[in-house]
Amino acid sequence: MKTSNIFDDVPTKLDAEQVTDLVREGGMCIKRIVSTGHTTGWLNPDDEEWVVVLKGAAVLRFEEGDCKLTMRLGDWCYIPAGCRHRVGETSDKEPTVWIAVHFKVSETAASDVGAKV
Amino acid sequence: MKTSNIFDDVPTKLDAEQVTDLVREGGMCIKRIVSTGHTTGWLNPDDEEWVVVLKGAAVLRFEEGDCKLTMRLGDWCYIPAGCRHRVGETSDKEPTVWIAVHFKVSETAASDVGAKV
Repeated sequence: MKTSNIFDDVPTKLDAEQVTDLVREGGMCIKRIVSTGHTTGWLNPDDEEWVVVLKGAAVLRFEEGDCKLTMRLGDWCYIPAGCRHRVGETSDKEPTVWIAVHFKVSETAASDVGAKV
Repeated sequence: MKTSNIFDDVPTKLDAEQVTDLVREGGMCIKRIVSTGHTTGWLNPDDEEWVVVLKGAAVLRFEEGDCKLTMRLGDWCYIPAGCRHRVGETSDKEPTVWIAVHFKVSETAASDVGAKV
């Protein structure tokens, strides 16, 4: 059993995004990401990704359909593998704290997961 | 791409815990759980579980070592498969909102996941 708090030691100014692995187990990774005004280039992920914003604000951009998605406290987004996207903006007024879950779709039947809890 | 907000339509009083699948893909499930004073019996999960409290408060109890873990805003806990635990308390003053990630440890090398993002 491992425990901590998402909001512990959130830096207010960073040269580059801060990425911290919270859990990394075969086939899956849960990260905390802190951005302070950072953006990214286009990403073409090999993995499935689910992200949620827990502080601050951001804008994601998606190549398909030239979509723009504004993300504020509690907003989450599921980005399938191969979905080209980038972080277009993050707040420069306060740190933006994300949780990101990266995973590969396995052949385990989805219906078997989490059934007992 | 699928999007919503964790805090949308959080009920304030429930007969039973409310569990909503946000993502369910082969081998992995991300859920929102809302508790309003609910507890559980002992759970002996087949899957790995990672949980975070985003509103409210709760107490988890673990059989091994008779441990008690108080969880408040932002507290997270990684509970390996087979780790017997139960929800001992949840706030009766406000809803407790959890995100729970359930997954099975696959043979995919953990180092391969999330490497590009």
